[in-house]
Amino acid sequence: MAKIITLTTDFGIRDSYVGALKGALLSVNPEAVIVDISHTIEPGNIKEGAFVIAGAYSYYPVGTIHVGVVDPGVGGQRKALLVETERHFFVGPDNGLFTFALGRESIVRSLELKQKRYFRDKVSSTFHGRDIFAPVAAHLSLGVEPSAFGTRLASCIALDSPTPKFTNSALSGEVIYGEVIYIDNFGNLITSIREEDLTARFKGTEADRLRVEVKGVEILGVCSTYADRGSGEGVALIGSSGYLEVAINGGSSVSYLNIGLGEKVSVSVSVDGTPTKKNFTKKNCNGGLK
Amino acid sequence: MAKIITLTTDFGIRDSYVGALKGALLSVNPEAVIVDISHTIEPGNIKEGAFVIAGAYSYYPVGTIHVGVVDPGVGGQRKALLVETERHFFVGPDNGLFTFALGRESIVRSLELKQKRYFRDKVSSTFHGRDIFAPVAAHLSLGVEPSAFGTRLASCIALDSPTPKFTNSALSGEVIYGEVIYIDNFGNLITSIREEDLTARFKGTEADRLRVEVKGVEILGVCSTYADRGSGEGVALIGSSGYLEVAINGGSSVSYLNIGLGEKVSVSVSVDGTPTKKNFTKKNCNGGLK
Amino acid sequence: MAKIITLTTDFGIRDSYVGALKGALLSVNPEAVIVDISHTIEPGNIKEGAFVIAGAYSYYPVGTIHVGVVDPGVGGQRKALLVETERHFFVGPDNGLFTFALGRESIVRSLELKQKRYFRDKVSSTFHGRDIFAPVAAHLSLGVEPSAFGTRLASCIALDSPTPKFTNSALSGEVIYGEVIYIDNFGNLITSIREEDLTARFKGTEADRLRVEVKGVEILGVCSTYADRGSGEGVALIGSSGYLEVAINGGSSVSYLNIGLGEKVSVSVSVDGTPTKKNFTKKNCNGGLK
Repeated sequence: MAKIITLTTDFGIRDSYVGALKGALLSVNPEAVIVDISHTIEPGNIKEGAFVIAGAYSYYPVGTIHVGVVDPGVGGQRKALLVETERHFFVGPDNGLFTFALGRESIVRSLELKQKRYFRDKVSSTFHGRDIFAPVAAHLSLGVEPSAFGTRLASCIALDSPTPKFTNSALSGEVIYGEVIYIDNFGNLITSIREEDLTARFKGTEADRLRVEVKGVEILGVCSTYADRGSGEGVALIGSSGYLEVAINGGSSVSYLNIGLGEKVSVSVSVDGTPTKKNFTKKNCNGGLK
Repeated sequence: MAKIITLTTDFGIRDSYVGALKGALLSVNPEAVIVDISHTIEPGNIKEGAFVIAGAYSYYPVGTIHVGVVDPGVGGQRKALLVETERHFFVGPDNGLFTFALGRESIVRSLELKQKRYFRDKVSSTFHGRDIFAPVAAHLSLGVEPSAFGTRLASCIALDSPTPKFTNSALSGEVIYGEVIYIDNFGNLITSIREEDLTARFKGTEADRLRVEVKGVEILGVCSTYADRGSGEGVALIGSSGYLEVAINGGSSVSYLNIGLGEKVSVSVSVDGTPTKKNFTKKNCNGGLK
Repeated sequence: MAKIITLTTDFGIRDSYVGALKGALLSVNPEAVIVDISHTIEPGNIKEGAFVIAGAYSYYPVGTIHVGVVDPGVGGQRKALLVETERHFFVGPDNGLFTFALGRESIVRSLELKQKRYFRDKVSSTFHGRDIFAPVAAHLSLGVEPSAFGTRLASCIALDSPTPKFTNSALSGEVIYGEVIYIDNFGNLITSIREEDLTARFKGTEADRLRVEVKGVEILGVCSTYADRGSGEGVALIGSSGYLEVAINGGSSVSYLNIGLGEKVSVSVSVDGTPTKKNFTKKNCNGGLK
């Protein structure tokens, strides 16, 4: 029986909103185990929410219910959603918030939440997290059949996935072009380039001959952990979520490169092992933020 | 049986204080279900704490115990408090922290916490959250009778409630004057004017003829959700806690108006539907914070 | 049976990392009670993490498992650690993160985590919190014998403890020299000087004759709580963790003194009760941060 319910919202951690949502949930099922994933998604940033949910949900037991509320369209035309996959449930607004998670799951059915008997008695038009999504998740955790909550949806809203581009020329050889899609708490730059992109395009190439370029500096070699480079040196590696990541050993990569989301990143092969740009190190980038 | 214990404090989320308080609580009742409402109340800001507790507590099941610790007077003359209402319990300092919640509840009894057998063995003079309020809440959750914790209090400290003022003149008609009492994570301005003030004063007036004024701009019409206005346009609505709220669709209201708590807000009736001030839109307020 | 598992990390509260770690833990033991101590330790700041763990762990029931992940050396040479003491368990990197907690406990055994059957199937080289420490803690909470997880360690890495120095001269009498080791959410300065240092060195001296000096100002008297001084006045007291603390009643001490970690603090005896420096008050320090 599903009992764990995770929460990912943009409510912040000071206001009463997270507390109210949890209360609404526990009023329906006082035995539910609530787990906070994040409440500090940038307000209204659906893409960021989608990325955070995708990075956490898969580690939970089969049957876990994931509630996501980044919902700038609340009270308007957007639908309220329940998606059942083979392993998990997702409850929240139909605005793309579950795109990156659902992309990796087998969907059993998608429903529009319509049965008001599972909502709070009075549904506000500004806080569906408290009045619709939390009580629906709680009823679901009590064993209510998914089909009881509403009607089938043929499809739900999806965000564009930031997919890398590939070129292959006589001059440059194979090149993967991606971008920075997330910057984490450590200042590490997570890119849109996945491990499988590297293995597909550079089969047979040794990892230490791959050349990662970002904002005028390069890192030679994709290694396996931060400690593979000296303190203050740039590191390119496949991060814990399977994406190519640009970090600096013992520091914040973003503060040295002074870049934002969307910054271009490329991966190519160094034929002779000589750099074509400055190496990414703290010393070479002292014009950064700190 | 009461088992859920909520926490609202100004301890912040980095230090060991929240962890120590939870440990003290679980040492008395390891089965208690602890729910965080907020730990990022501004240090010592009792009014903000009172507002956040009031916005969340009522959604919890009957019998829930709400612990609040915003306690600048710890170790001094202020009393330690347990209030039992018909539906909830409140435990914390007697400094007004539960004012706005208690104002909506039927109080059964108020007690001064005195029985040291329910405190930690060694009570510090700077951390009653850990040494008094948490263990008392935990014992209460185990079924100890409220009356066992101390002696009856005739009354407890209350904050002033920010109540709106009303005028009615031949020239302006009915006007409600309130103020900004809270600014939330989305930059929405929550005012002291409640839904019932509007319905009482403007009975029979259509909501789209109400004129909300704040800091030299106005919004015509009180609508029901953010999406009722175009992106970048100001919105006045009754928020999820029942207060009149000034927001901007797709943005942070406070950043465009550059105001703080206490800023005056008024509501009147537009006779002919023509504005008397600039409309509140992002474009009209580009001198804001961002 | 151990069931409570506490978490202290430097992951921050926005990313998916905390959520992923909790999921990995609950996938092994869905009944585990997870309690957050802190996730906002400064990235890579082992000393800060050690101080926060030490301030919270001891309040938990016997048998509690404390997971700490401040782990800049992840994937490198540092060992993975399980320490069993007479009352608690500690799981995390062998980098000193448990130093201040273990200094107060009787260690039963220290083990290097080696048995991969208790790790996640695929262990990344950048996220041992999710792939090693969380599942090990979960298996431990299920009753697996500590000795099953690995091999005995003769010793584990320890941080230097910030111990005060003492002098005694005819001119100044007994003086204790310490430093600021932590600044809390309230702006209070926690020093390396412990209650027992004061009682050992100043036996027989009245607390109100002790003179605490920091950055050119002094406080006369060590009192027992903030409210023992008037609003805006400096206070020296033994804080809730047993350390000498410099605070200001109704304000942030650090913002008035504008100092950082490592700032020197001394305690001596005032022979005649007259100050030798300016008193620490808000008025005397108006060049502070705010």
